[in-house]
Amino acid sequence: MSQLENAMAMIMQVFDKYASTDGKKQTLTKAELKTMMEKELPAFLKAAKNQDEADKLMKALDHNGDSKVDFNEFVILVAALTCACHNR
Amino acid sequence: MSQLENAMAMIMQVFDKYASTDGKKQTLTKAELKTMMEKELPAFLKAAKNQDEADKLMKALDHNGDSKVDFNEFVILVAALTCACHNR
Repeated sequence: MSQLENAMAMIMQVFDKYASTDGKKQTLTKAELKTMMEKELPAFLKAAKNQDEADKLMKALDHNGDSKVDFNEFVILVAALTCACHNR
Repeated sequence: MSQLENAMAMIMQVFDKYASTDGKKQTLTKAELKTMMEKELPAFLKAAKNQDEADKLMKALDHNGDSKVDFNEFVILVAALTCACHNR
């Protein structure tokens, strides 16, 4: 696999790992999102001003209002953070 | 770095590698985009029906019409392909 294919595969693996905790691997619940943030994006969480950042993030990501984050919504988060980091 | 941070860093590295060929590392020219596709996304190109896929892709990605692909436009491509691959 190329470096880019590898990165794309890693994004899928991260989502699948945390989304499958509750057995429903299509979506991240708020608890799964929080765990994923703590484990995978500790720097982002540290930079967050207060601890209910996961709530705010869930609301921002949850475009279809089902109180869960699906893969497309998750990729939008990753894309936004990647752009923010690259353009700093 | 976590797996997700690693994936994000790899996406930035891939863009910087191909965008800097012409010395202007903020954007990919059409030639740089074509080389990146051939090297980093060979499977995607193979699946493309014909060879001027890079032209079509450039037009689709080039949201600001400057005939170049900047990092944000590149990340939209990566995000779209990642969603397409995951949701298959």
